[in-house]
Amino acid sequence: MRAVEWNPAGPAVRVVDQRRLPASLEHRDLLSVQQVAQAIADMTVRGAPTIGAVGAFGLALAAHASDASTLPALWDDITHAHHILRSSRPTAVNLAWALDHVTRRVTQSQPASVAAAKAAFLAEAQRLADDEVARNRRIGQHGAALLADGDTVIHHCHTGGLAAVEYGTALGIIRAAHEQGKRVHVLVDETRPRLQGARLTAWELQQLGISHEIITDNAAGYFLQRGEVRAVLVGADRVAANGDVANKVGTYMLALAAAANHVPFYSAFSTSTVDLECADGASIPIEERPADEVLNLSIDGQPIAPAGSRARNPAFDVTPHELITALVTEAGVHPAPFGPALRHATMEGRSA
Amino acid sequence: MRAVEWNPAGPAVRVVDQRRLPASLEHRDLLSVQQVAQAIADMTVRGAPTIGAVGAFGLALAAHASDASTLPALWDDITHAHHILRSSRPTAVNLAWALDHVTRRVTQSQPASVAAAKAAFLAEAQRLADDEVARNRRIGQHGAALLADGDTVIHHCHTGGLAAVEYGTALGIIRAAHEQGKRVHVLVDETRPRLQGARLTAWELQQLGISHEIITDNAAGYFLQRGEVRAVLVGADRVAANGDVANKVGTYMLALAAAANHVPFYSAFSTSTVDLECADGASIPIEERPADEVLNLSIDGQPIAPAGSRARNPAFDVTPHELITALVTEAGVHPAPFGPALRHATMEGRSA
Repeated sequence: MRAVEWNPAGPAVRVVDQRRLPASLEHRDLLSVQQVAQAIADMTVRGAPTIGAVGAFGLALAAHASDASTLPALWDDITHAHHILRSSRPTAVNLAWALDHVTRRVTQSQPASVAAAKAAFLAEAQRLADDEVARNRRIGQHGAALLADGDTVIHHCHTGGLAAVEYGTALGIIRAAHEQGKRVHVLVDETRPRLQGARLTAWELQQLGISHEIITDNAAGYFLQRGEVRAVLVGADRVAANGDVANKVGTYMLALAAAANHVPFYSAFSTSTVDLECADGASIPIEERPADEVLNLSIDGQPIAPAGSRARNPAFDVTPHELITALVTEAGVHPAPFGPALRHATMEGRSA
Repeated sequence: MRAVEWNPAGPAVRVVDQRRLPASLEHRDLLSVQQVAQAIADMTVRGAPTIGAVGAFGLALAAHASDASTLPALWDDITHAHHILRSSRPTAVNLAWALDHVTRRVTQSQPASVAAAKAAFLAEAQRLADDEVARNRRIGQHGAALLADGDTVIHHCHTGGLAAVEYGTALGIIRAAHEQGKRVHVLVDETRPRLQGARLTAWELQQLGISHEIITDNAAGYFLQRGEVRAVLVGADRVAANGDVANKVGTYMLALAAAANHVPFYSAFSTSTVDLECADGASIPIEERPADEVLNLSIDGQPIAPAGSRARNPAFDVTPHELITALVTEAGVHPAPFGPALRHATMEGRSA
């Protein structure tokens, strides 16, 4: 099952509505660029690689819907769609990368007609999604070597197939180890505020038959301190040129706790998540999201915060590269120093 | 308002039902030792000092309800109540301390009759509660000197009047600074799993008119990293002789993040929370609580975890003394080394 695909019957960008899981598995057909941007902003779809592919299919949808009769007019419509899509989530670099990548590829193919250009946008979006899945499988193969039979690992947020088009990045490593017959037990950080760990990671692990227990994010330090954990695995939303990793908020404190207890900390991502133009984490913009994501919880039907409460809600934080044992990409497992390895892997990935 | 007091009309131990806040402020009359133990176990009452005082009043209730006609028979009933009360929460040392303290004081007073012993149990419980409040006010006075006008602080869990009979420990410091006219802004860790930060700390700060915003526990590292925070304040559930602090789960990762960013980390508690018989944190028993405290959340009426999910739920963790800038007790602000200061303060407190 793919988190995003083209539905020719619409035509539409067909996505799994991640907000409805784990209660129900529902697909939604996004019928316009505005609907695509909205689905990214409201987290109907989430996960950096999935967002990138959704954005790419969004461009294909814009091309399809355009009533331009000349190529310059089509490019105007595409530029407009670009702008709408790019501003829907500021931190995940895959989105900007995917939009630029698809556009560049179509331009380079020098389509002879509006119809050819429209077809090229769809073909390139499809190819981008397929490539992402192929990269995930290579990440899984490389990373599985880091896990041994019987290991307990901590996983933060959601990095499975829903987040990464198909298969997954950090969760793909766990999945690949499981497919190799290694028994791995996952302590699933619930991942406040949006609880993607409890809602999505636990759901995918359940589907895959992989042993797991949900914990509060606060409890990770306790299990690390007791020596029960052999590795910590996370994904990435944007990786700077020096290996600093912007990822779901809470990753930084988890990395500190892993380092303090000498437990290896791995961040896994495809090179589409690397932003070589960011020298380090300090230059990555961090999205602050609406307060109601923090305040809208209830227990037994009772709201958790007093009426009128205010909240702050950063969606990501930056884990400095010094806290990371190795990065895992489709090119392999990269120990420090990360800079040269990331440059090499990313250039190779992009020329592929 | 006190979190616990004696209701002579019952007689009963009258407590604020902390599980009903912030939706409503309700009192409950606990009419038997069993009801008192249940209220401690199910977290109707929580916070180490409050639990201690509730336990002490529970003994007074047991004494009152006893139909013993001789002093040895009364002591049998008290010993039985001791056992029931002591086992209701394993980590908070105040409970065991309060039960022992009240019993020892009554024994030392050598009551001449069953009636005199019953009266002595109530008087000693009342005195213990009054002493706790007096200690809180001294903690607040000492600790307020650590905060400056305009400071933003992070606070974990709940350490206010509800948790500490009246006034509060770590929150008492914030309160005392506020009463001195210092403008302090509190980033309130929501404190999963039971969300005492969002539910109780935010409520008390709102009542007191102190500026605050709720954050997820995951977000603390982000704000520390950005240099927005001048101090981190927590309470304690049990403090070992070397200054290791067992406190609400998540405290340890918060302390790591404070240390990594050179932000002072303070743990505030009355000496009734010190357990000199625990040499260090490794010998403090950590309670693991039911999985449903992790899994029973919902958002917009939708459960957060797939049906059939399992969870692990440690209630506390241990912060090693190396991560703590200073401890604050009623005897003053104690920088490292903590051992001699804790021994001195605790002996003095107990002989008082």
